[in-house]
Amino acid sequence: MEKIAYVNGSYVPHSEAKVSVFDRGFLFADGIYEVAAVLEGKLIDNASHLARLKRSVGEIQLALPETLERIEEIQKELVKRNDLVNGMVYLEVTRGADKGRDFAFPKAEANVKPTLVMFTSEKDIINAPSAKTGINVITVPDIRWERRDIKSVALLAQVLAKQAAAAAGAGEAWMIEDGKVTEGGSSSSFIVTQDDVVVTRQNGSEILPGCTRNAVVKLAEERQLRIEERAFTVEEALAAKEAFITSASVFVQGVVAIDGKTVGNGKVGPITDRLREIYVEFAKATAV
Amino acid sequence: MEKIAYVNGSYVPHSEAKVSVFDRGFLFADGIYEVAAVLEGKLIDNASHLARLKRSVGEIQLALPETLERIEEIQKELVKRNDLVNGMVYLEVTRGADKGRDFAFPKAEANVKPTLVMFTSEKDIINAPSAKTGINVITVPDIRWERRDIKSVALLAQVLAKQAAAAAGAGEAWMIEDGKVTEGGSSSSFIVTQDDVVVTRQNGSEILPGCTRNAVVKLAEERQLRIEERAFTVEEALAAKEAFITSASVFVQGVVAIDGKTVGNGKVGPITDRLREIYVEFAKATAV
Repeated sequence: MEKIAYVNGSYVPHSEAKVSVFDRGFLFADGIYEVAAVLEGKLIDNASHLARLKRSVGEIQLALPETLERIEEIQKELVKRNDLVNGMVYLEVTRGADKGRDFAFPKAEANVKPTLVMFTSEKDIINAPSAKTGINVITVPDIRWERRDIKSVALLAQVLAKQAAAAAGAGEAWMIEDGKVTEGGSSSSFIVTQDDVVVTRQNGSEILPGCTRNAVVKLAEERQLRIEERAFTVEEALAAKEAFITSASVFVQGVVAIDGKTVGNGKVGPITDRLREIYVEFAKATAV
Repeated sequence: MEKIAYVNGSYVPHSEAKVSVFDRGFLFADGIYEVAAVLEGKLIDNASHLARLKRSVGEIQLALPETLERIEEIQKELVKRNDLVNGMVYLEVTRGADKGRDFAFPKAEANVKPTLVMFTSEKDIINAPSAKTGINVITVPDIRWERRDIKSVALLAQVLAKQAAAAAGAGEAWMIEDGKVTEGGSSSSFIVTQDDVVVTRQNGSEILPGCTRNAVVKLAEERQLRIEERAFTVEEALAAKEAFITSASVFVQGVVAIDGKTVGNGKVGPITDRLREIYVEFAKATAV
């Protein structure tokens, strides 16, 4: 059975899931996206993803075509229609398709409705082998625009960064700006210092406010772990006890080498493992 | 009659011109575009646009699905099918639609073919009223990524800049970085100093190498005008005799005010007018 996607009110097989070539997502990257994990058929930390969606569209003055409640209904309907047990639901909202191509927003009288697209993919995040082995990361210059807090589909810099990682046999690319790590191509970056302080960059326009990042920071604080939100260098990461990344599609995943140099003892560390357990517990307890 | 677009080998009415929601142009802005002007049914400076297309796709390791010769044939076929006399042909190449969504390039064995889309629009560039009256521009911070020499569809920053201009009743937004003008949202920026030197920013990763910009610089040099390729400030532009922009969709267009402050005598200047004439003459003489 072919998988089903949602496109502007219709549930259609993936092969028929299409948008106009005039869609501003296709012409201008004028759109916002979110990815929510699914565990045992339920959405993980979805309120956080929908809140970020609302913030991102607001930052580019894009009106959502449906309420957040309705969007969650569609997410759940897609999970059901695709018999999705473990994986992700992707959603993208764009400023829609006007009759032609003009950089400025469509005029009100053109009555252009935003595009809403969603689809699912399967992934056993809990049992991914890399959760045990950890991943290698490479570093690349952070060449992105200045509003990385907006989760837009203008992702070409991230595509190039993650392709460089894939070509090097690494699982992620850490982006470097002014000598400091900003974040990964599609994940947040963490280290655990020699005195067991969990460090991750503070939120701001330099990085995306990761939903999983924010949850992990909160969960760690609740468990009295020492957390510092500040930028760190690659040298600091290489001198750290542990390093890890977080994202909706990996949860918490150990980093065992950076640019071919071992982090800590080259294995996924105990604090990383502990935070992963805590996150999975939280995820399952709050799934909807 | 509905206008005809080209989508991956087919000529289809605009209302049926669609791409997969899995197209990497839609998901990641993983694509390159070009816009060539059409005058009296012929393509303007097209070799320059196709050369830039080839360079841009090379910079992101994207293979063109057709030869440049074949692309020009399709451009001409579209002009013909749409009875286009004056206007533009838009073309976009993306890294195609894989089965799912993965930042890294599709694997070779997936055999994902790049997407090629083209469509036309009508515009009487020669007789546009703004050619006579000039336009106002506003200034905005340049928040784009660091590879602006690549003509990618990751255009959200330009969309926001040009929307800000439209909302202010201006015709273009000049983007400012480190106190200097980089370029307009979709055009190159020029000034003419009090001693008749035509100044435009040197090419580099900070700006797109404008086809019309490059042609105007060459034509001006051939006519013994004094040209300086260097960055300039807004203050310098406001103290200049004239200012103008160039692009494939406006050719050469006077700028009469910046952020509400008059440039020169507030009218399109004689050197701007002369360069426009020279460009139009060149365009017609070399049209294909």
